[in-house]
Amino acid sequence: MSSKSYDDMEFAKLDTDRELRQNVAEVVFCEGKEDEHLVKIFRRLYEQNGQVLGTRASAHQYDLVKEIIPEVEYDETSRILKVEKEKELIGNIAIVTAGTADIKVAEEAAQTAEFLGAKVNRIFDVGVSGIHRLLDKEDEIREANVVIAIAGMEGALASVIAGLVKNPVIAVPTSVGYGASFEGLSALLTMINSCANGVTVVNIDNGYGAAYSAVQINRLAVKGAD
Amino acid sequence: MSSKSYDDMEFAKLDTDRELRQNVAEVVFCEGKEDEHLVKIFRRLYEQNGQVLGTRASAHQYDLVKEIIPEVEYDETSRILKVEKEKELIGNIAIVTAGTADIKVAEEAAQTAEFLGAKVNRIFDVGVSGIHRLLDKEDEIREANVVIAIAGMEGALASVIAGLVKNPVIAVPTSVGYGASFEGLSALLTMINSCANGVTVVNIDNGYGAAYSAVQINRLAVKGAD
Amino acid sequence: MSSKSYDDMEFAKLDTDRELRQNVAEVVFCEGKEDEHLVKIFRRLYEQNGQVLGTRASAHQYDLVKEIIPEVEYDETSRILKVEKEKELIGNIAIVTAGTADIKVAEEAAQTAEFLGAKVNRIFDVGVSGIHRLLDKEDEIREANVVIAIAGMEGALASVIAGLVKNPVIAVPTSVGYGASFEGLSALLTMINSCANGVTVVNIDNGYGAAYSAVQINRLAVKGAD
Amino acid sequence: MSSKSYDDMEFAKLDTDRELRQNVAEVVFCEGKEDEHLVKIFRRLYEQNGQVLGTRASAHQYDLVKEIIPEVEYDETSRILKVEKEKELIGNIAIVTAGTADIKVAEEAAQTAEFLGAKVNRIFDVGVSGIHRLLDKEDEIREANVVIAIAGMEGALASVIAGLVKNPVIAVPTSVGYGASFEGLSALLTMINSCANGVTVVNIDNGYGAAYSAVQINRLAVKGAD
Amino acid sequence: MSSKSYDDMEFAKLDTDRELRQNVAEVVFCEGKEDEHLVKIFRRLYEQNGQVLGTRASAHQYDLVKEIIPEVEYDETSRILKVEKEKELIGNIAIVTAGTADIKVAEEAAQTAEFLGAKVNRIFDVGVSGIHRLLDKEDEIREANVVIAIAGMEGALASVIAGLVKNPVIAVPTSVGYGASFEGLSALLTMINSCANGVTVVNIDNGYGAAYSAVQINRLAVKGAD
Amino acid sequence: MSSKSYDDMEFAKLDTDRELRQNVAEVVFCEGKEDEHLVKIFRRLYEQNGQVLGTRASAHQYDLVKEIIPEVEYDETSRILKVEKEKELIGNIAIVTAGTADIKVAEEAAQTAEFLGAKVNRIFDVGVSGIHRLLDKEDEIREANVVIAIAGMEGALASVIAGLVKNPVIAVPTSVGYGASFEGLSALLTMINSCANGVTVVNIDNGYGAAYSAVQINRLAVKGAD
Amino acid sequence: MSSKSYDDMEFAKLDTDRELRQNVAEVVFCEGKEDEHLVKIFRRLYEQNGQVLGTRASAHQYDLVKEIIPEVEYDETSRILKVEKEKELIGNIAIVTAGTADIKVAEEAAQTAEFLGAKVNRIFDVGVSGIHRLLDKEDEIREANVVIAIAGMEGALASVIAGLVKNPVIAVPTSVGYGASFEGLSALLTMINSCANGVTVVNIDNGYGAAYSAVQINRLAVKGAD
Amino acid sequence: MSSKSYDDMEFAKLDTDRELRQNVAEVVFCEGKEDEHLVKIFRRLYEQNGQVLGTRASAHQYDLVKEIIPEVEYDETSRILKVEKEKELIGNIAIVTAGTADIKVAEEAAQTAEFLGAKVNRIFDVGVSGIHRLLDKEDEIREANVVIAIAGMEGALASVIAGLVKNPVIAVPTSVGYGASFEGLSALLTMINSCANGVTVVNIDNGYGAAYSAVQINRLAVKGAD
Repeated sequence: MSSKSYDDMEFAKLDTDRELRQNVAEVVFCEGKEDEHLVKIFRRLYEQNGQVLGTRASAHQYDLVKEIIPEVEYDETSRILKVEKEKELIGNIAIVTAGTADIKVAEEAAQTAEFLGAKVNRIFDVGVSGIHRLLDKEDEIREANVVIAIAGMEGALASVIAGLVKNPVIAVPTSVGYGASFEGLSALLTMINSCANGVTVVNIDNGYGAAYSAVQINRLAVKGAD
Repeated sequence: MSSKSYDDMEFAKLDTDRELRQNVAEVVFCEGKEDEHLVKIFRRLYEQNGQVLGTRASAHQYDLVKEIIPEVEYDETSRILKVEKEKELIGNIAIVTAGTADIKVAEEAAQTAEFLGAKVNRIFDVGVSGIHRLLDKEDEIREANVVIAIAGMEGALASVIAGLVKNPVIAVPTSVGYGASFEGLSALLTMINSCANGVTVVNIDNGYGAAYSAVQINRLAVKGAD
Repeated sequence: MSSKSYDDMEFAKLDTDRELRQNVAEVVFCEGKEDEHLVKIFRRLYEQNGQVLGTRASAHQYDLVKEIIPEVEYDETSRILKVEKEKELIGNIAIVTAGTADIKVAEEAAQTAEFLGAKVNRIFDVGVSGIHRLLDKEDEIREANVVIAIAGMEGALASVIAGLVKNPVIAVPTSVGYGASFEGLSALLTMINSCANGVTVVNIDNGYGAAYSAVQINRLAVKGAD
Repeated sequence: MSSKSYDDMEFAKLDTDRELRQNVAEVVFCEGKEDEHLVKIFRRLYEQNGQVLGTRASAHQYDLVKEIIPEVEYDETSRILKVEKEKELIGNIAIVTAGTADIKVAEEAAQTAEFLGAKVNRIFDVGVSGIHRLLDKEDEIREANVVIAIAGMEGALASVIAGLVKNPVIAVPTSVGYGASFEGLSALLTMINSCANGVTVVNIDNGYGAAYSAVQINRLAVKGAD
Repeated sequence: MSSKSYDDMEFAKLDTDRELRQNVAEVVFCEGKEDEHLVKIFRRLYEQNGQVLGTRASAHQYDLVKEIIPEVEYDETSRILKVEKEKELIGNIAIVTAGTADIKVAEEAAQTAEFLGAKVNRIFDVGVSGIHRLLDKEDEIREANVVIAIAGMEGALASVIAGLVKNPVIAVPTSVGYGASFEGLSALLTMINSCANGVTVVNIDNGYGAAYSAVQINRLAVKGAD
Repeated sequence: MSSKSYDDMEFAKLDTDRELRQNVAEVVFCEGKEDEHLVKIFRRLYEQNGQVLGTRASAHQYDLVKEIIPEVEYDETSRILKVEKEKELIGNIAIVTAGTADIKVAEEAAQTAEFLGAKVNRIFDVGVSGIHRLLDKEDEIREANVVIAIAGMEGALASVIAGLVKNPVIAVPTSVGYGASFEGLSALLTMINSCANGVTVVNIDNGYGAAYSAVQINRLAVKGAD
Repeated sequence: MSSKSYDDMEFAKLDTDRELRQNVAEVVFCEGKEDEHLVKIFRRLYEQNGQVLGTRASAHQYDLVKEIIPEVEYDETSRILKVEKEKELIGNIAIVTAGTADIKVAEEAAQTAEFLGAKVNRIFDVGVSGIHRLLDKEDEIREANVVIAIAGMEGALASVIAGLVKNPVIAVPTSVGYGASFEGLSALLTMINSCANGVTVVNIDNGYGAAYSAVQINRLAVKGAD
Repeated sequence: MSSKSYDDMEFAKLDTDRELRQNVAEVVFCEGKEDEHLVKIFRRLYEQNGQVLGTRASAHQYDLVKEIIPEVEYDETSRILKVEKEKELIGNIAIVTAGTADIKVAEEAAQTAEFLGAKVNRIFDVGVSGIHRLLDKEDEIREANVVIAIAGMEGALASVIAGLVKNPVIAVPTSVGYGASFEGLSALLTMINSCANGVTVVNIDNGYGAAYSAVQINRLAVKGAD
């Protein structure tokens, strides 16, 4: 077990071996982290990797990290806080949303995927109640190695797309909606029950998680199994 | 209140005034009725109206009623038990299903609508995971005064159809599915959260209820308000 | 497919064809839209149609839009933000509420219906626990081409009304209540399980959606199928 | 504590003091009891009180008990198994149902109430979708000391009745319905959320429990506090 | 039906006949009422009855009403806003709580019951985890004509009390608790499933509703049926 | 990792090291096992340990195993199938039930605990609605090193007991009940929300699991930490 | 739209174009299909493709199909009914189960994957409560292009595996369990909330769906994007 | 019953006998207590015991209590407010968390356990998605008399630990997570369904309750039954 190592920071145990094992550096889920812990983790990961990605960061956390890493960037829409090394992007991940309110989740997915080295094609506001808007993008979507379908409310987008493409579709339910949308639960159930082949699902609003899986698939498509 | 009358059978109070008030004769929900009660109710309504419609009837109930009303007909798929007067059918109600397993509910809706005097156009197995099958029927569906969209599993059919037509869509979730379909609850939530304009929803597997509302709308479209 | 067109604004795809296909102009769901997007969408729709209807708008959004469209009007109760062309109202939609707290939803429905060209009859605070108040309005309600029944808490209003009228009833559960009302879920379940014929249901607090479907039915009743 | 006594049968501890403390003899919930236990408990209570009431009994259990207590009676509808001493019935409990399928629960309530000494007025099949049938019974219902309102599906009956009477209403949701009735849960929620004053609720299908509370109230009304 | 009258205030229909029919004056549920409406309703009821009871009132609403009715009183714990005529209190209602955090709901119940003319005995903080504290009050509780049992968290109080007394118990689940208490749902389920005879249940935190039913029972016990 | 060994049977991996690590032999959850697999696993464990305990076994499975292990015993109430070596029982585990219908779960717990070497004290039918029956057993219950409290319906037993004793209480919700008991969910919620100190909870009907944990605690109490 | 074709069988619309678009032939979900329909669909697909795969088939359906396609094979464990052409299997999909009761779902996944051309490595009964059994298989699991992790009860398997591998993990919750497992819902929630990177989820017991997505990924890994 | 005494403070009944009966002094659940009540309870308990422990305290409550008990200490992370007598800590309780966000709950548990006299070993951030971090701590965890396993999101930690140790594991689900974590419900379900032996569960975020039970077990392990 000696080849499995990690960095014990007392309050956190950073998985320094993760890049080897999983081909990606550690990413920080910022929400709920205490200020002091967040800053220390960012500094440590930045020193180790020259880059670092934080998700669900607040403006306040941006201010904190900027003090020690002035080059850190923050995007309010996606709530991503990052320092990113330049890199060549490979493959093709299509990120498709049903509405404009789903863009927040879509940008979390898109910027995560780009950080992890994938080329992203953003296709927004093509929900199923205006099916011809979606069909106009059919060819573009079919070119992707993997599609991330993001929708709230009734979440039907993933089923329609999966019927159009031959590659995997990762569905992300969003908390967009009101009343019986139950903050994304209805969309989650819709997607889990998809009648179409080739749909798998992640947690509500989990753009990051969808991107991570999509990057794994995209890398396999471009580089094959190693 | 003298103009509101009903027929008190002790165990049941038949609404003999209903046809005047609602333009339809009483329909019998057969499931759970005791044998003796069912037979009496069927006989009474048949004598009053010359026709009678029973929903959710069992083969056993068919046998019982046939003894006293030999001309009664039973359809196993829709579980409808009826004696029907010849009548002219008016208007156009499209009944659309996502899959073949939804046909049971669709036939309950279709035969109810026909019993209540509406012309029906059946369009089956055009679920959203093969969207082009649905789009091939777009013109037919647009011609209807009202559309009944029937789907289980993820129930996305209603949203897509409502985006294509200008007339009302009544969505019927079905209990078709397994696992997290929760016997129709997921489809119900999908439909209630529809992002499309013009969708209203009835109870799970309630083909009868959808037909009833559709017939009301179809009559308004053909005859106008009286 | 060339006859299906839309206006691609990058972050949103406005369905310019919708009026042709569905007889209504695009309506804007304001909640959650980013300021810049909202303003652009309002301007575009106003330019195209000479009128525009926003639902679930905030006072802040009113201020924003007023800067570019000074004639825009805002109603705090219904949260409707609109510029409306004068038009002749047709038909008769009855909008009935159980309590005074349901008026917010009722006004969203009423003003939407009027914007879309229907005549509305408002009948408020006639819940079933004082059944004689409702029965005093029976004749008025029976005259409508379609009834919108709005109720929170136990939501029993729709069933009682549907038993009184011959035209369709659209039920709107509201989030009025506390404890086991579960923010409208209980009322939604009551309405979906209605024992009365002719009830269909929309999402919790969805006054807009109920009005949209009611307008479709009202138009069919007045103008017939085209 | 010496005044609190019970009869220890090893597998069960019969509360022989209950009649003193609560004015009623022990009643047996038969469902799920093992044959041998059931027979012993029936015999013991019969010996002690000269009467015994079993609820939710099966035909098989009837056969078992009849062997040792030949005078025992069984009613299939209510599933009540009893030997009953003659007694004078006092007061007035109205038992009202929405539909005919609710009669099973209503009879459990009615026969329990009669066993416990109350006079019962049965008023069946007066659900809210035909409100005039209910209103025709208004005077009768108002005469009761307490009303038991029994309804499945959307369960709106209790609210309407409570608005008509000045005495307490006990609501019993039933498992009658299908789809989103969730075996009585929807009716339970409706009743718990009643907008009317004076409604309290018992468990789904719990006719026995409603009768027990109603008998307590009826006795207070007739005899006053002792 | 001419003997059923109400006062039509346009936005609200006050049931002026209610006292005749139900022996109590109208009570105002203040939460969510618009300022202008609230003030008008309070004034009208005060003029008609010389007293008025508001539940779930805010401090802000107190300020508003005080301007037009200077003698109005407000209690922050129970959130009751009232002008009360002196009256003789009759009978005996025991109001029992499991913990100190349930006192808010208990005071709503107690002050409502007193307003409606009942004598109240407050017994607080005798939850089942310290059963001997409850048993010390057994005699006092047994003297009541009706008991209101108020508990959050696991809500077991009602079952234990119902086993000790011969009169009715009305259970009020409260939203006190955290985690899997689901804001009172767990306590509600506990109480609805009570294994004890004589328990009926009202909505979560509904002290008012429990008091209303208790007053009905208490009056029957003292005055008998009229 | 060489000290962690198991027995690979292809379809199952028996944890032969478990006794060392956890002080108990492998137990078999029989329900759902295929006939051939069950027989092989029983034989293997019997050969290794000279005893074997199966839970949730059917009569059919008893017949199968008896063919190869004639000395196997089966108890219909607890559904336990076992061959048991004689052993000295230590300590004191009290197993308390609310009703007689909970005895099935209690016997699963009791026989498991005895198989694993603990002395058991069975105290049945002392539910909280007859609190004096429970209090009569207070001294006996206080003597136990750990108490297993088993109850369905409203599940209040655990809270009352935990208030009486100083040692740990393990609560087992049972599926006994109907309607809103939701097959044990209500009892589970009651127990998880217990207001008493010292209550932990296992899955619905999980007598085995409660016994396992109780045996661990009982052993610590008798033998101390090793 | 001419390039999108399907075979209209009146009651079903077979997607003959599916192989082109999605690289797989049509698969039949047998459960709930009427006998006559099932036989016709099997014959048609067999004629078109020389092979056909049915999932969730019953023994009765096997008998029916065998009459017209004598070479059809049926596996009771997986409930798969198929005629399969010989083919070369490519890549590496690891199918891992927590327990032996999950094997039914695992075999549905495994045989589907093999039918669709993928090489499968079955690793069963390595649940997380005996973590060393799982770790012994770590190297084997890491070699797969994609892992299907199948578990009921608490469903923790997917998170542990995803922490060990660099390729995608598809999690399948199963309905194995009892009580608060809610027929797979608990396992589904566990998996959707996985704290590990690279987990996506399909419906409860949906071995087929997991296999389909896994085959898509496996093909990308072996053949790259085409 | 004379040996059971308590201190009646009118609004609260402090169980002064509790230390005798349960070996611990009264602890105060601060959340929701009114200021005046809280201060009085703190003073009374401090006078009686020379120490007092408050859980879920706010900074505001700290200020209040400090005025009358200047030596009181407050910890923001755990929200514990206490005056603690020096004492010798005994035994060994391991408190293990899956992530850093679970530390809040872990500290409530740890400081409670220490207050009640137990030695605590804190092992944080060893969640199952990095299983080797957990296995590195295996020996330490095995040394504990009882383990408290704290995890949000998917809550798999308890099952893995229970498979590694021979002593009891108390699982605490936390509300850490988002979307379908449903504020701890998913973690609760995971833990209740644990496939591992020896896991019992407390309420979401209930660090205090877990510590209390753990202290009972730890004392039994060190001192045996008394």
